[in-house]
Amino acid sequence: MNKMRSLITGGAGFIGSHLVDKLLSKGHQVRIYDNLSSGKEEFLHHHGENIELVVGDLLDLERLTAAMQDIDMVWHLAANPDIRLGTRVTDTDLRQGTVATYNVVEAMRLSGVKNIAFASSSVVYGEAKVMPTPEDYAPLFPISLYGASKLAGEALLTSWVGTFGLKCWIFRFANIVGARGTHGVIFDFIHKLKADPKRLEVLGNGRQEKSYMEVEDCAMAMIHIVEGQDEDINCFNLGSGDTCSVRRIAEIVVEESGLQNVSIEYTGGDRGWAGDVPKAMLAVDRLLATGFNPSFDSEASIRHTVRRLIEEIGL
Amino acid sequence: MNKMRSLITGGAGFIGSHLVDKLLSKGHQVRIYDNLSSGKEEFLHHHGENIELVVGDLLDLERLTAAMQDIDMVWHLAANPDIRLGTRVTDTDLRQGTVATYNVVEAMRLSGVKNIAFASSSVVYGEAKVMPTPEDYAPLFPISLYGASKLAGEALLTSWVGTFGLKCWIFRFANIVGARGTHGVIFDFIHKLKADPKRLEVLGNGRQEKSYMEVEDCAMAMIHIVEGQDEDINCFNLGSGDTCSVRRIAEIVVEESGLQNVSIEYTGGDRGWAGDVPKAMLAVDRLLATGFNPSFDSEASIRHTVRRLIEEIGL
Repeated sequence: MNKMRSLITGGAGFIGSHLVDKLLSKGHQVRIYDNLSSGKEEFLHHHGENIELVVGDLLDLERLTAAMQDIDMVWHLAANPDIRLGTRVTDTDLRQGTVATYNVVEAMRLSGVKNIAFASSSVVYGEAKVMPTPEDYAPLFPISLYGASKLAGEALLTSWVGTFGLKCWIFRFANIVGARGTHGVIFDFIHKLKADPKRLEVLGNGRQEKSYMEVEDCAMAMIHIVEGQDEDINCFNLGSGDTCSVRRIAEIVVEESGLQNVSIEYTGGDRGWAGDVPKAMLAVDRLLATGFNPSFDSEASIRHTVRRLIEEIGL
Repeated sequence: MNKMRSLITGGAGFIGSHLVDKLLSKGHQVRIYDNLSSGKEEFLHHHGENIELVVGDLLDLERLTAAMQDIDMVWHLAANPDIRLGTRVTDTDLRQGTVATYNVVEAMRLSGVKNIAFASSSVVYGEAKVMPTPEDYAPLFPISLYGASKLAGEALLTSWVGTFGLKCWIFRFANIVGARGTHGVIFDFIHKLKADPKRLEVLGNGRQEKSYMEVEDCAMAMIHIVEGQDEDINCFNLGSGDTCSVRRIAEIVVEESGLQNVSIEYTGGDRGWAGDVPKAMLAVDRLLATGFNPSFDSEASIRHTVRRLIEEIGL
């Protein structure tokens, strides 16, 4: 891949900031567009003057369009990171997901930018009847509002491909975990143990089981695929090909915490909340066929992440 | 099906007004929610006092929620009917499709209505590689902005099913044609011949080929499936199982017009406009398996419609 000028939406966030690290290490120029609602400037401090940060909201189409100036490629990662929030506030994913993604592709059209990589999610598969679930699985019936916004985002991209000549890379992420994580089950467990070192409450029966991918693997896989795959629409699952249960995650967190006599308690039920997919396992044959090999499987991703987040959060 | 109190969005429109006819003829109560942007009160006049018409916009969530009072079932048919418009005004389908559908399911949540039928479209399949295209075809990469809004709408419905306990019937329509049509290729051809009886310009090479369904068949099929199918998510292609080419439609329009020596001229290219799907053929095995049989195949639907629209438009 020639040196690119990239715009990364959500580039100050968890996955975005790792993508920024990797793009810079390959010599690309990076501009970040982030409203710092869940992203943090400290995730970028180590780059000093080597990056450009535009603090702006995706719902500000004018500012976003201006930020597209001289850009070769957009990496659209910004989104509401809290899937569960949709059960309480129903327009979050519509606005920060669907409408925001509309603004991204519209700003690209207005400024002539042609290439976009998009952080979609395996939750577009809903409760899939085929596992491991391949990219051409159907029907696509997401059960969370977050999942609906990701499928809507994919459709906006492909319609801009078909109507306005965009080229897109759609990445359906497994659960991405790693350093700088600000949400998710590992993050929650560590905070719970910090508040009460004797007791760890787990939502559901702990048998929920999902594919995990370490965040640096994820960022490298995205770049690897954009470099090597050149269809008008390129759609890839990004995961590690196996799964880890919530029960196992709880055990690993307790092991790595060094705490003794922690009681792990389950609230019961087959899922953590309405809209939570109890089991997800991604087929990653297409990813592996590109020559990419993740460094970590699901359980190793979890353990690596637990160690990093215990360092960051403290226990 | 017990007698229902139905709310029909877009009930004054082309398909909606036929659905109103059929629901009333089965003894159901009908309330219509329509902003009359493309719907027409004259499509409902024959019902006199037997219907209730609320003139309102789907973007007015408060008014929409109030209109859900005492409703058992929503039939959500309102949408921008002009697919091609997305190539010029890019936020039409986002607002009148995706955001409007969000408002519909949100108003249902707020008022406790649990059942919804949704007019989706075969354009969610994009340029499908399998024909006839079944309901579980993937990947779903719509190429028009209208198609993106329909897929986004489906995903909103399924996420409300998974998160808030809705039940939904998703209908992926073929090209629906018939009396009261206000858009589409037949409507356009008749208007063109009215303006110039010697020459008929066809966008593209005329080899575009799609499934057509007659609008009364469509309305009856929707009711038939809602009556008989009871999953949480029920997804059906609605079409007639074959196709008709644009070239053949042009010939039928000219035949039925009674005009002599009409020159049919093609602008060339494999599609009418960017985002137009050149070929679409729906698998209707699931529909037929419910015991429903369309009265017309694609070509008969076209000829029937040409006759009705020539009466309505005049030539």
